Amino acid sequence: MRPDDANFAGNVHGGIILKMIEEAGAIISTRHCNSQAGEPCVAALARVERTDFLSPVCIGEVANVSAEITYTSRHSVEVQVNVMSENILTGAKKVTNKATLWYVPLSLKNVNKVVEVPPIQYARKEQEEEGKKRYEEQKLDRLETKQRNGDVIFPIINPGTMEPHTVGYSQSSLIHLVGPSDCTLLGFVHGGVTMKLMDEVAGIVAARHCKTNIVTASVDAINFHEKIKKGSVITISGRMTFTSNKSMEIEVFVDADPFVDEARERYRAVSAFFTYVSLSKEGKPLPVPQLLTETEDEKRRFEEGKGRYLQTKAKRQAQLQQAALQ
Amino acid sequence: MRPDDANFAGNVHGGIILKMIEEAGAIISTRHCNSQAGEPCVAALARVERTDFLSPVCIGEVANVSAEITYTSRHSVEVQVNVMSENILTGAKKVTNKATLWYVPLSLKNVNKVVEVPPIQYARKEQEEEGKKRYEEQKLDRLETKQRNGDVIFPIINPGTMEPHTVGYSQSSLIHLVGPSDCTLLGFVHGGVTMKLMDEVAGIVAARHCKTNIVTASVDAINFHEKIKKGSVITISGRMTFTSNKSMEIEVFVDADPFVDEARERYRAVSAFFTYVSLSKEGKPLPVPQLLTETEDEKRRFEEGKGRYLQTKAKRQAQLQQAALQ
Amino acid sequence: MRPDDANFAGNVHGGIILKMIEEAGAIISTRHCNSQAGEPCVAALARVERTDFLSPVCIGEVANVSAEITYTSRHSVEVQVNVMSENILTGAKKVTNKATLWYVPLSLKNVNKVVEVPPIQYARKEQEEEGKKRYEEQKLDRLETKQRNGDVIFPIINPGTMEPHTVGYSQSSLIHLVGPSDCTLLGFVHGGVTMKLMDEVAGIVAARHCKTNIVTASVDAINFHEKIKKGSVITISGRMTFTSNKSMEIEVFVDADPFVDEARERYRAVSAFFTYVSLSKEGKPLPVPQLLTETEDEKRRFEEGKGRYLQTKAKRQAQLQQAALQ
Repeated sequence: MRPDDANFAGNVHGGIILKMIEEAGAIISTRHCNSQAGEPCVAALARVERTDFLSPVCIGEVANVSAEITYTSRHSVEVQVNVMSENILTGAKKVTNKATLWYVPLSLKNVNKVVEVPPIQYARKEQEEEGKKRYEEQKLDRLETKQRNGDVIFPIINPGTMEPHTVGYSQSSLIHLVGPSDCTLLGFVHGGVTMKLMDEVAGIVAARHCKTNIVTASVDAINFHEKIKKGSVITISGRMTFTSNKSMEIEVFVDADPFVDEARERYRAVSAFFTYVSLSKEGKPLPVPQLLTETEDEKRRFEEGKGRYLQTKAKRQAQLQQAALQ
Repeated sequence: MRPDDANFAGNVHGGIILKMIEEAGAIISTRHCNSQAGEPCVAALARVERTDFLSPVCIGEVANVSAEITYTSRHSVEVQVNVMSENILTGAKKVTNKATLWYVPLSLKNVNKVVEVPPIQYARKEQEEEGKKRYEEQKLDRLETKQRNGDVIFPIINPGTMEPHTVGYSQSSLIHLVGPSDCTLLGFVHGGVTMKLMDEVAGIVAARHCKTNIVTASVDAINFHEKIKKGSVITISGRMTFTSNKSMEIEVFVDADPFVDEARERYRAVSAFFTYVSLSKEGKPLPVPQLLTETEDEKRRFEEGKGRYLQTKAKRQAQLQQAALQ
Repeated sequence: MRPDDANFAGNVHGGIILKMIEEAGAIISTRHCNSQAGEPCVAALARVERTDFLSPVCIGEVANVSAEITYTSRHSVEVQVNVMSENILTGAKKVTNKATLWYVPLSLKNVNKVVEVPPIQYARKEQEEEGKKRYEEQKLDRLETKQRNGDVIFPIINPGTMEPHTVGYSQSSLIHLVGPSDCTLLGFVHGGVTMKLMDEVAGIVAARHCKTNIVTASVDAINFHEKIKKGSVITISGRMTFTSNKSMEIEVFVDADPFVDEARERYRAVSAFFTYVSLSKEGKPLPVPQLLTETEDEKRRFEEGKGRYLQTKAKRQAQLQQAALQ
């Protein structure tokens, strides 16, 4: 990991890691989907399951990324990616991420056609059943998010005029012109590139709010509803929705403006929640200033964020208890 | 020039060229200022004179950048940089830019101290006098812009809700977290990095307005009033101010948010006018849709832009006539 | 491999591959040298043995890089790196490079101190002896090159004024300001970054000479005599020395200018010979226009280049014969 991959405190941006994870997933699933004499295809990212950043990676460390296909449906591939950071000076290794990604193979000749995925062999019968369960769950969730997404409108306010710790104060957005190196062979933006930009905006929102060194703690499930074409301009906007004592939740939207292709209006391509924590110089979690909500919408979003926070907390405690019992 | 340096039509972004020009200027002036046994220093960009982009550069071409010191005052260096594009397959060469930059050497040990510049030798006595005249002129202009700059307030509106061809419709802004590679040895953002981002925003404003392939035609004089520190977040905002039949003028602001350093509020670091033209697929200039002005401020800025446009046009015609007479 | 890694014909630049090779070598040797409880250190590239580019890599292919330590002396590590390109659509794999690199571990606390290398275990006794022989050979060669290097003076002429196919016509140089991401933890330029820039210049020289699509065919042994510090300006210069019917030899020099650090003059850091071939649109080798030599020095260098060319050719034929006999 290089200086440019990290913030001023030397912690590698979560977005850099998400990008590497997606690259590994795209390679293994494209390779698999072309492994039998079928129509040549490229795997496109459809969804990333919720993932935690278990420990920060630092400049000078080596990131080891490994990927494995864990389930295939007729038209999709589930990939499990693990990231381990290695300090090659001390030999210390740490698991930093475990992520699950879903890919869909699109035909090289016709990008609107999803080709068939060759089935994988399972070591145990249960693996296939468990995979099928995960497949059905994510399918349902994707459908739900798609409907929710259409309604969101995101007003952009000049942050300079706002009170500190309000939603408007830290709200940020960036625009990015999609270049050739951002795209797959099909001419669509790599999912990893989008996630890197989303994390960049979320990080700036978090830093504006608490003015300390901040790092990505987790990312909620992300659904990629629509492809983004080369030559588009994408606007990535982030606003804080919730703060607990030691964490901040930031909602990030990606809107694409296919302005070369006049026939199409701006559309919402992706949205997700990022959770950030604030760290002291010694790397210890710091208390986070509470978010000041003003409008009804902000208050509602805060309560929804609190719900997600408590749900995740409960889930984690259940896992810990289960682990203690085993 | 590489694919990522260019837009979808293969024309290299003006910002990439500005960045190269500034890099050459920074190298030659830092080298000169350290050429005598004095205090080690790094040259910081203070100003770029108005520059025209005489012809577009394409992917695959080689850009030849040459720099020469043309004047030194006690505390500043004037550098003349020429850019020539070369198609190494056909051997064809074209002058694409001639730019004049002013640098100030800052001490490596104390960034607030400007060190003394070793004088250069002039081939002819007049060169020194002409240089001195240019020095005085730019000094005056810098002072004036500094005063003007403080007052500007820039409201950001959601472009999605606006009518096409209004100011609000194409208005764009992006945020950038200053990374290590953006900075000089002193930990301040390279002037060239700032100009590249400014051109990026201006280009997106122009493309949103006319939805065609657009290229930078010229940049007005740019004054760098304030340094931007590593770890800052910079917001670059652009709005269209004027359209002629075949050109668009875009005003760009750079605001810095030194959010790690709590003692300081957001401040205006740079501002400038970029002129863009719209090109057909064959590279011919296209007519530009007229800018719709709504508020009093927009109308006033349109008239001011018209003034600058007519002044530049008159100056160019005078030069052509003079050249024809010689 | 991404569009920015490749030339306009879609072939990945040799320099990109050299950079990946060096990165793999630096990781494995730094890891090895820190594997025993000794002084923390970072491996610095000292030498790359002559390497051939066996087949071009294309955009969209995946490059698989694997590295193995094959010999250790008291103060150096020999690493063997293999690069295989993989077309994940067709499954086709090709060996593209086999390279041998020598690293020296420098102390993190004192960059002028070379620390001791933990010995490796050899599967067979002969491996150690063969390694020792390679070690002695490279040591001798490094010494010889170091002496030769000091004398070279490289006049830079404006290519525009020269006749096609002369040495001066294609001669090129580029200047690069060393940034943080170019450097190791010790603050010195990665050997791979230097090689990438060298290949870039060599490629421009070759393209200027023959005005076709060109690719790196091989690189001569490269010795890294001197470290290059962060903040330096490096000048990379290339000139053609020899042409055979189907290949061009380009000599490349790297000079460092530690211009902020007063104590030191510009010095020669690296030099090497790159061999390029010209390819038709179908990827077949094309004849190369003969280099026109004018001065005595150019004629002498041409003859020396011819000597190297014939020697390599003879060596390759001997290897082929040997392989045929086995």
